[in-house]
Amino acid sequence: MTCQEVYVAPKPPSPIAEGLLSLWHLDPNVAFLNHGSFGATPRKVLDAQTKWRERFEAQPIEMLDRQGGELLSQARKAVGEFVGSRGDDLAFVANATCGINAVLRSIDIRPGDELLTTNHVYNGVRQTFRYIAGCTGAKYIELEIPIPIHSEEQVINAIAEAITDRTRILVIDHITSDTAIIFPVKRIVDLCHKNNVEVLVDGAHAPGMIDLNISEIAPTYYAANLHKWVCAPKGAAFLWVTPEHQNQIHPNTISHFLNEGFVEEFKWQATRDITAWLSVPNAIEYLADIGWHKIKQHNHQLATWAQAMLSERWDVTATTPLDGSMLGSMTSLPLPANAKAYKEPRLFMRHLYVDHKIEVPINDWQGQWLIRPSCQIYNLASEYERLADAVITLCESAGR
Amino acid sequence: MTCQEVYVAPKPPSPIAEGLLSLWHLDPNVAFLNHGSFGATPRKVLDAQTKWRERFEAQPIEMLDRQGGELLSQARKAVGEFVGSRGDDLAFVANATCGINAVLRSIDIRPGDELLTTNHVYNGVRQTFRYIAGCTGAKYIELEIPIPIHSEEQVINAIAEAITDRTRILVIDHITSDTAIIFPVKRIVDLCHKNNVEVLVDGAHAPGMIDLNISEIAPTYYAANLHKWVCAPKGAAFLWVTPEHQNQIHPNTISHFLNEGFVEEFKWQATRDITAWLSVPNAIEYLADIGWHKIKQHNHQLATWAQAMLSERWDVTATTPLDGSMLGSMTSLPLPANAKAYKEPRLFMRHLYVDHKIEVPINDWQGQWLIRPSCQIYNLASEYERLADAVITLCESAGR
Repeated sequence: MTCQEVYVAPKPPSPIAEGLLSLWHLDPNVAFLNHGSFGATPRKVLDAQTKWRERFEAQPIEMLDRQGGELLSQARKAVGEFVGSRGDDLAFVANATCGINAVLRSIDIRPGDELLTTNHVYNGVRQTFRYIAGCTGAKYIELEIPIPIHSEEQVINAIAEAITDRTRILVIDHITSDTAIIFPVKRIVDLCHKNNVEVLVDGAHAPGMIDLNISEIAPTYYAANLHKWVCAPKGAAFLWVTPEHQNQIHPNTISHFLNEGFVEEFKWQATRDITAWLSVPNAIEYLADIGWHKIKQHNHQLATWAQAMLSERWDVTATTPLDGSMLGSMTSLPLPANAKAYKEPRLFMRHLYVDHKIEVPINDWQGQWLIRPSCQIYNLASEYERLADAVITLCESAGR
Repeated sequence: MTCQEVYVAPKPPSPIAEGLLSLWHLDPNVAFLNHGSFGATPRKVLDAQTKWRERFEAQPIEMLDRQGGELLSQARKAVGEFVGSRGDDLAFVANATCGINAVLRSIDIRPGDELLTTNHVYNGVRQTFRYIAGCTGAKYIELEIPIPIHSEEQVINAIAEAITDRTRILVIDHITSDTAIIFPVKRIVDLCHKNNVEVLVDGAHAPGMIDLNISEIAPTYYAANLHKWVCAPKGAAFLWVTPEHQNQIHPNTISHFLNEGFVEEFKWQATRDITAWLSVPNAIEYLADIGWHKIKQHNHQLATWAQAMLSERWDVTATTPLDGSMLGSMTSLPLPANAKAYKEPRLFMRHLYVDHKIEVPINDWQGQWLIRPSCQIYNLASEYERLADAVITLCESAGR
């Protein structure tokens, strides 16, 4: 936005339809503004999982052993079509962190190698890095990218400066967790390729929130959840690996098919419930009936509006530009300063939940308390207005 | 059995009750003689899981984040009471292989260390050993223990001879997979302790099949499934670790609570469906209403009878003594020699399943084709007689 432009506050979108909340099991007495943490699964998708499970229980060996491989192959194909990939270039895992663990535990890391990410990294991934650095003698580096973010260049320039001859791998968030920023991953991936650095995109929040075409981004690895914004049952996620690296990547649970190739190894991670994975196509289809474009657009407009409205009400600066250019369906903002009278973010969250019936995450990010409302089609603009009021009320009562 | 004793063929037990099969989802048109591979879950236990899942979906953050730790703690306590352990000395994992991976990937293994097991090891664990040996430069050793087994001493003496100064860890099956032998793990564990060798018991089949008291066995590590003979939903298993080693063992997916202790690390293996774990107490209680002692006794008697009957009908020697002293609820026997005309064990299995509606596993174990019928309370003696006939029919038709 140049200084000539006049800022026009956005309006919230109209709901796609009435009564969408009832398609989920979510408690209607709570404003659930935290789709982002664990997702939420529509009733019909859970019903599909229950049906899968009963089919498996009727013929356990036939379904899991003899037909399981083919069923998983079909499910991978459907996921691949949704995220721009061949089905066999991705493998199901329980969550994105699990996929990232598989990569970092599989690749050859030497003492002195640099493992690079930013200070927007998801904490579970940070811990994985620390563990791997400890095991291998590599150096873990967290590049600082301050908030608010004004432009893509800020991110790209910082990363370009941080890459060295010793950089073994960069892990970059597609959409950051605490700070809810869409990073320009295509440009970052290109930068890495130019420098011969492997790049793993942590796309935990991407599928179902934004348009995603992994083949176009073309990273070395891409890990993502399907139980968040695709609304699949919990435990549904994938790891995508570029073909020339697939043979080097092993699942976290080694089992029968070691060294028989990426597809074979990951299709059998020992006896487990694979019905969450098989239900992903059910989730994709179910929400396709509402319309994926419509869903993404609605959620983005709601987030852009909520960001502007909350910024103004609380007099704070959100992590991303107000024009919505760097956010998806979540926005992240600092809480007003006196929120810290509550000592712990969790205590503030607890008050919002118990006193105001609002579920929303608050995290201490580099000393700042960031609140991150999510926007899903079951949410209404009025819920964010309730949030604006509730935060002000809590902050005022803290001052007394 | 001394030569003075006259062998008296056992009789099959009476069914505990009529119509037990209908408590499961199992296809009534198939003789399901393979409880051992993946288990099978009673309808009511699956219903309990569905209820858990719906509770989670109603309040995702409250249940998984804020209450999840306490719910898991209660479930661990119930499992602990069932297997003779404090709840906090065990951690939930997706399957026994996963638990064994966690141990072998966590402990410090140096080049030249010997990783010892027997040729009865489960193949998924064999592959894990191979992978770890490849990463660390350790030596993987598979001790040969021939079948049939006549006595516990055979096993103990072989292991005593195989332990050296370089033995880093022994992995020993409590009940072997392909060969269905109960190994004398208490005596083997004592032997390891005497030699300062860590010992991991692979108890994949033990809980719910035999009486189990891990504290009495007192190994270094014990991994077991709960989805097999405890009949919990798939994906329910645990890893037990002796207190002084707990801080060194990490889950396969490192996440937020790295280095905060065994209980903390394993209670959060990133976002996943924990309802299979929470449903384990439901499974324990549900089958307690029928009576765990009664169940184990019935299944053991049925297996002992089936072993004798099949040995006689097929004129083969089962893997364990005919008095049932080294088997639980599964028996393993070589198929008649001309079964190999079918080229692949899976092809023979396929004929049993398609032509005779019998589900039973057959594995090539060290060049021998072993068939391993399981006995669960929903099984009837007549199903094993059908199996006896079907195998003879298939072998005869192979000869033509």
